[in-house]
Amino acid sequence: MKKAILVFQTDFTYKEGAVSSMYGVVKSVDRELEIITGTHEIPQYDIWSASYRLYQSMKFWPEGTVFVSVVDPGVGTGRKASVARTSDGYYVVTPDNGSLTHLNKWVGITEIREIDESVNRLKGKDTEEVSIFHGRDLFSYCAARLASGIISFTQVGPEYPVSEIIEYPILEPELKGGRVSGIFEINDPNFGNLWTNIPLSMFKTAGFEFGDYLKVRVWHDGSKVFSEDVLFHKSFGFASKGDPMIYNNELMKISMAVSRGSFCGEHNIGYGSTWAVEFSKK
Amino acid sequence: MKKAILVFQTDFTYKEGAVSSMYGVVKSVDRELEIITGTHEIPQYDIWSASYRLYQSMKFWPEGTVFVSVVDPGVGTGRKASVARTSDGYYVVTPDNGSLTHLNKWVGITEIREIDESVNRLKGKDTEEVSIFHGRDLFSYCAARLASGIISFTQVGPEYPVSEIIEYPILEPELKGGRVSGIFEINDPNFGNLWTNIPLSMFKTAGFEFGDYLKVRVWHDGSKVFSEDVLFHKSFGFASKGDPMIYNNELMKISMAVSRGSFCGEHNIGYGSTWAVEFSKK
Amino acid sequence: MKKAILVFQTDFTYKEGAVSSMYGVVKSVDRELEIITGTHEIPQYDIWSASYRLYQSMKFWPEGTVFVSVVDPGVGTGRKASVARTSDGYYVVTPDNGSLTHLNKWVGITEIREIDESVNRLKGKDTEEVSIFHGRDLFSYCAARLASGIISFTQVGPEYPVSEIIEYPILEPELKGGRVSGIFEINDPNFGNLWTNIPLSMFKTAGFEFGDYLKVRVWHDGSKVFSEDVLFHKSFGFASKGDPMIYNNELMKISMAVSRGSFCGEHNIGYGSTWAVEFSKK
Repeated sequence: MKKAILVFQTDFTYKEGAVSSMYGVVKSVDRELEIITGTHEIPQYDIWSASYRLYQSMKFWPEGTVFVSVVDPGVGTGRKASVARTSDGYYVVTPDNGSLTHLNKWVGITEIREIDESVNRLKGKDTEEVSIFHGRDLFSYCAARLASGIISFTQVGPEYPVSEIIEYPILEPELKGGRVSGIFEINDPNFGNLWTNIPLSMFKTAGFEFGDYLKVRVWHDGSKVFSEDVLFHKSFGFASKGDPMIYNNELMKISMAVSRGSFCGEHNIGYGSTWAVEFSKK
Repeated sequence: MKKAILVFQTDFTYKEGAVSSMYGVVKSVDRELEIITGTHEIPQYDIWSASYRLYQSMKFWPEGTVFVSVVDPGVGTGRKASVARTSDGYYVVTPDNGSLTHLNKWVGITEIREIDESVNRLKGKDTEEVSIFHGRDLFSYCAARLASGIISFTQVGPEYPVSEIIEYPILEPELKGGRVSGIFEINDPNFGNLWTNIPLSMFKTAGFEFGDYLKVRVWHDGSKVFSEDVLFHKSFGFASKGDPMIYNNELMKISMAVSRGSFCGEHNIGYGSTWAVEFSKK
Repeated sequence: MKKAILVFQTDFTYKEGAVSSMYGVVKSVDRELEIITGTHEIPQYDIWSASYRLYQSMKFWPEGTVFVSVVDPGVGTGRKASVARTSDGYYVVTPDNGSLTHLNKWVGITEIREIDESVNRLKGKDTEEVSIFHGRDLFSYCAARLASGIISFTQVGPEYPVSEIIEYPILEPELKGGRVSGIFEINDPNFGNLWTNIPLSMFKTAGFEFGDYLKVRVWHDGSKVFSEDVLFHKSFGFASKGDPMIYNNELMKISMAVSRGSFCGEHNIGYGSTWAVEFSKK
C-alpha cells in the first residue's frame, strides 16, 4: 500500500527557514513520504481560517491523506497537540485549538488522540529544550511517523472524547418569509470575494434563480453597511467589470464578488459573526 | 514509461485553499503523478503574463510535460477550455483566452482540443453545479487524466483549428539606420527589470558590444519618459550599485535593470505596446 | 541507494518564471530527482540571511541532501560558483559570496570545489550567451548532476582551500558580571521576532531562569533604543497578548518577541552588528 500523502498548512510563510526545517524532519523520518504544500499563508494566528481551509480542500484528496495544520498561538502552553480522524477517513495533525471546528461540524470527527510527546516528539539535534516550534518537533515528526506506518493511529497517544474538541460557534443561515439571511463566514482574500454560510439549496428553496437581481443588505454589528440590488448568476463573467454579483461558490455556498474587482476591498466588508447578510427578491 | 510531470501556474496565490483543492484532485486521479508549482503568483487576470511565463520556462522541462495554466477571468462563460500540443511535444491545459499567444508565435502549437466536459470534468463531491472553479473541476482533473495516461490527447475532446486560438498581437522589433527599436514586453517584477522584445542578435547586427554605452530613449504613449546613456554589459555586477544598465536576459532578449535596484520602480516605467524603447550608439 | 534530495533557497520569489525554469532543468537532468522548495523569499540580495537559513534548517534533513542556495548579486562577475561539503555530510551549491558563513563557523565546511563550467553548465536551449541566470544554467544543472550521481563531488571541479571561503564576521556573545550581551543576529520576519547570538546555555550560566523578569537594553549604533523589564519564559503564551518577552528559540538562541505581536515592528528594532542587546537581573 502506498504511504499517505502529507499536506501542510500553516501561518509560517516562507520568509524564513521554518518550513524547510519541518519538511526536513519528515524526510528524515522516511525518505519516501510525499509532502505537498497546502498553504503557508493562513493569516497569522487565524485559527478560524485554518479550520475553514481544511474543510474547503480535504475531500478532494485521496482517503487516508494526513493533513498537518499548524496555526498555533498557544504553542508551548496547555492546549492539546492532537491527531483527529474524520468520518471519511482523513487524518489531521494539529493543535486542538479550534482548527477542527468545520470538519467536526460538517464532516464529523470520529476519533481524536493527544500526541504522546514521550514517543512522538523529535529527539536530538538540540531540540529537547525548544518549546516554541511544535510544528517541527511534534506535529511534523508525529505526522511523518503516522503517514509512514511507523506508528498506527492508536500509537499516536491516548484517545479523548470527541466532545472535548475545542470548537468555535458556527451560525446557521435562515429562510423566513422569502428572505434568506446568514453571515459572511470567510473570504477569498486573493480575489476579494466573501463567502456566506448559506447553501445554494436554500436559495433554490427561496425561489431565487440565476439571472435574478436580488436585494442584498449587509449589517456590521447591526449597522447597515451595504444595500444594493445585485445580479445572482453562475460566474463572474456574467456581470460587467466592476459590478458586484452574487454567485454559487466552489463549496456550494452563496458568495459575493465584484467582477474583476474586490468585493471586500471596494465595500469595506469583512467576515465573522458580526457581519450579517440578507437576500430577498426585489 | 514515466508519467508526465504536471507544472501549475495560476493567479490564485496561496492565500486560501484553491491550490490545495486542485492538487488533491490530481492525486485522487492518480497517486503517482508528480506536481510541481510553477507559480501561483501570476498578476491577477494577467493573461499576457501567463502566456509569457509559459514560454519562458517550458523548454527547460522534459518533453511531454503537461502545463496547467489557469488565469481565467472568463471562467464559466463562453471561452473554450482547451489542451494544446506544442511543436516540441509539450501540453498546455488552459482556458483559450490568449494564454497561448507566445507559445503559438515562437514555438508553435500543432494541435488544440476543447475539453469535453461530459467526460473530463470532475464528478461528485458536490461539484456539478459549481461554475467558478474550472481550475479544480476541469483543468486539474483533465490534466491529471492526460498525464496519467487514462486518456490520450485525442480523448481530451474535439479538435479545432489552430487558427482559431485566441491571441494577443505581438509587436516586432526593428533595426534601422543604426537604431534598434522595440517595446518593453514584460517585466521581472521581483528584481524590477524590464525585458524588451529585441533579441541579442539584433544588437550584434547593429554593432553594439558588451561594454558600450548606448543612448536609450523610452516613450510612453508617445511621450519621452527616459533618455540616458546606459552601459550595455553581460551582467548586473558590471554596473555600479544604483546605476541603470542594459543586459542580455535569460531568454536572449535585451533588457534593462538598475544594478541592485529596480529599473521599473525608480524610473516608473511599465510594459506593453504603449512602452516603446530605442537604443543607438552615442 | 536513493538519490539525494534537492532543497532550493533563493531570493527569486515566484513572481515570474525563474523557479519553474530551474526546476525544469533539474527534471531534465533526471526525472527521478526530488525537489523541495526551502524558500524563494530570502530578502533580496541578502546573503547573510541566505547563510543563516542554510544553517537553520540543514541538520533536519537527511545526510547527503544537496542544498541549492542562490542569492547572487554578483552573478556573472568574478565570485566563484561552488559546491561545499559540510562536516556532517551535506552539500551546498552556491555562489561563494558569504552564503557559507554560518555553516563554516558552526558546522564546518570540510571541502569546497569551484564548478567547472566547461562540464557542469547547461548546454543548448539558447543558454550559452546568458550571463545573468547561473541559478538555472549552472547551480541547478550542476546540483542535479551531483544529486543524480552523474558526477561525483570530485567531478564538480577543482578543489580550493576552505580558508578561501568568503565569510562575514560573526560576533560572539559575552557573559560578564552577571550581564549577558550580544547582538540581534537575524529576525523571524513573519512573526516579527528577533534572534540574538546568545545561546540558552549562557543564560543558564548567568543564572537566568524561565519565569524571571530581566532588564533588557538594546542599542543601535551606540544609542539606547529599548530599556524594559521583560519576562523570560518558555513560550509566547506565557506573556499577555501585546507584551514583549524573551524566549529560547528553535536553535537554542535567546530571542525576543511580542506575544501575538511584532517585536521588530512595534519597537522598530533591526538586526546586524550595529544592534547590541544586554540582559541582566533587575
